[in-house]
Amino acid sequence: MRVAIVGATGAVGHELMKVLAESHKQGLLNITEVQLYASARSQGKTLNFAGQDLTVQTTPEGPIPADVVLASAGASISKALAHQWASDGAVVIDNSSAFRYDADVPLVVPEVNGEAALTHQGIIANPNCTTAIAVLAVAPIHRKYGVKRMIVSTYQATSGAGQKGMDELIEQTRVYLSGGEVSHHEFVHPIPFNVIPHIDVFQDNGYTKEEMKVAWETRKILGDDSLNISCTAVRIPTLRTHSEAITLELSTPAVPSEVRALLSTAAGVEVRDDPAQNLYPMPITASGKYDVEVGRIRQSLVFDGGIDLFVSGDQLLKGAALNAVQIAEYLQAQGALG
Amino acid sequence: MRVAIVGATGAVGHELMKVLAESHKQGLLNITEVQLYASARSQGKTLNFAGQDLTVQTTPEGPIPADVVLASAGASISKALAHQWASDGAVVIDNSSAFRYDADVPLVVPEVNGEAALTHQGIIANPNCTTAIAVLAVAPIHRKYGVKRMIVSTYQATSGAGQKGMDELIEQTRVYLSGGEVSHHEFVHPIPFNVIPHIDVFQDNGYTKEEMKVAWETRKILGDDSLNISCTAVRIPTLRTHSEAITLELSTPAVPSEVRALLSTAAGVEVRDDPAQNLYPMPITASGKYDVEVGRIRQSLVFDGGIDLFVSGDQLLKGAALNAVQIAEYLQAQGALG
Repeated sequence: MRVAIVGATGAVGHELMKVLAESHKQGLLNITEVQLYASARSQGKTLNFAGQDLTVQTTPEGPIPADVVLASAGASISKALAHQWASDGAVVIDNSSAFRYDADVPLVVPEVNGEAALTHQGIIANPNCTTAIAVLAVAPIHRKYGVKRMIVSTYQATSGAGQKGMDELIEQTRVYLSGGEVSHHEFVHPIPFNVIPHIDVFQDNGYTKEEMKVAWETRKILGDDSLNISCTAVRIPTLRTHSEAITLELSTPAVPSEVRALLSTAAGVEVRDDPAQNLYPMPITASGKYDVEVGRIRQSLVFDGGIDLFVSGDQLLKGAALNAVQIAEYLQAQGALG
Repeated sequence: MRVAIVGATGAVGHELMKVLAESHKQGLLNITEVQLYASARSQGKTLNFAGQDLTVQTTPEGPIPADVVLASAGASISKALAHQWASDGAVVIDNSSAFRYDADVPLVVPEVNGEAALTHQGIIANPNCTTAIAVLAVAPIHRKYGVKRMIVSTYQATSGAGQKGMDELIEQTRVYLSGGEVSHHEFVHPIPFNVIPHIDVFQDNGYTKEEMKVAWETRKILGDDSLNISCTAVRIPTLRTHSEAITLELSTPAVPSEVRALLSTAAGVEVRDDPAQNLYPMPITASGKYDVEVGRIRQSLVFDGGIDLFVSGDQLLKGAALNAVQIAEYLQAQGALG
């Protein structure tokens, strides 16, 4: 299988190469060729894929000669070019928000709604990182108990803004600690030792687009437009892995022990929930991990039979690169790839 | 008025002296004498109060010869000694959790239930910092619309664990940035660039005591045991100021503009809510401020007529020192102090 990465030099591109190499090594994806694309500025750069040096080419404004195109170059580039990339038969798995809300573009988390990928017409959308992480824990609960209301508060890492976001946190934390004046470019305000309740642009309803993505995308992935979802999305001074506090009202009452058992057999989930041993989800344990950590599973105090939980998931992996590669793996396993 | 500070050398003690000096300067508290107490280890230390050097004495195991004792030395010391401190007529305003749930001890946020302070029998409890900050925003909404359900997720600073908590964050962040191995003593896990969903001890119901404090204390301060409250309390790598994402279900529907107008006249609250100007509550703007910042006021997407909001409040001030001094000011204003 010929795989192309568009946006190979970014933070997600970096993770894509690692995850692809691992998938090939594990015999999941049968990769015969890897093509790397990025903006003209990176043309000629060399990146290592599984021991091989590959040259980065400028992202084409036409068909890409590959079976799968893993795109992570931002919504405006995808919006302008993805249909052209796919025009010779490649399947574009797009990490941006460009097509997520299009009725004819499936939005896929393979563990949850993999079969939706088979309906694609050239483009498959990879969900927002916060949604992908939450939905792994929420989908099994929704299937068994029926989620009526879902309230999410996020603790999002700077890598959500890419490598530059992480660099700004590290650099500006150094500046802070040396008594200098902290500046900011990637974030709207200084991020060291701060909290910024503002990710992506504000909508007319007072929510940010990041917050609305969680509502829109969770409903689409779960195939349930009746779900009431509210989110507060907050940037905090961590490097990697988003955490989320989630409160669920359920149609059928659940007890925590049942939910713990249910999630312990769920794909893509690691139940990490032993308060007596100080075990619960955290960025320092979830970073670099394929599975999303789920813990602090407890009976809701506001909804009879409802459930509260806490998740930490590496948003560069399950929230982006890993999920995209898993979609390709799913398509290959279903014989739906060249 | 003679004022004593027990726990003068801690982070809250430090703030108490600053707030007391300011209150005296403003002509709010008429302070004639300040006594400083701490553990035996600090005996003889000198601290500056309003330009005067005062000597720290060992906390007595008997009556304190003052009109007001502001205690911030931890629950076990208060539990053992507060009744003795008060035995000669002093009013003990206690910052620990030792007495907060005693039926005969008022739990007071002056802007919300100041009159409860007048019923004291020698001891008045200062609420948990997270509660004090939340209740300033929630109380006016509860009075006008009736809060039925309240869901809180916190973003709590390391200073919630005192000066040592802040020191550990700063020191261990330096260690991290220089490539060393991060250690931890004040927190259960390393705190730099991490998130720890565990503050205070776990209860049988899977919630931490910190989380339950928010439920118990909010109900007591608002005088409404029917309130359904759930909290997820999370330590994050900030130095000062707790933030909270709060979702409210209301008995009478509210619209954001009404709530914004209501809170803009509420005592102790600064409405900071102009997304178009990137204005919302944040630790870097709320730290050192007496008022609690409230913003991101928007219509709930899960409760008809409900409200979502975000608060940031300096928990060493309104969450501790400032609230304690304001209780003393209230008592003086009511002629209820010697």
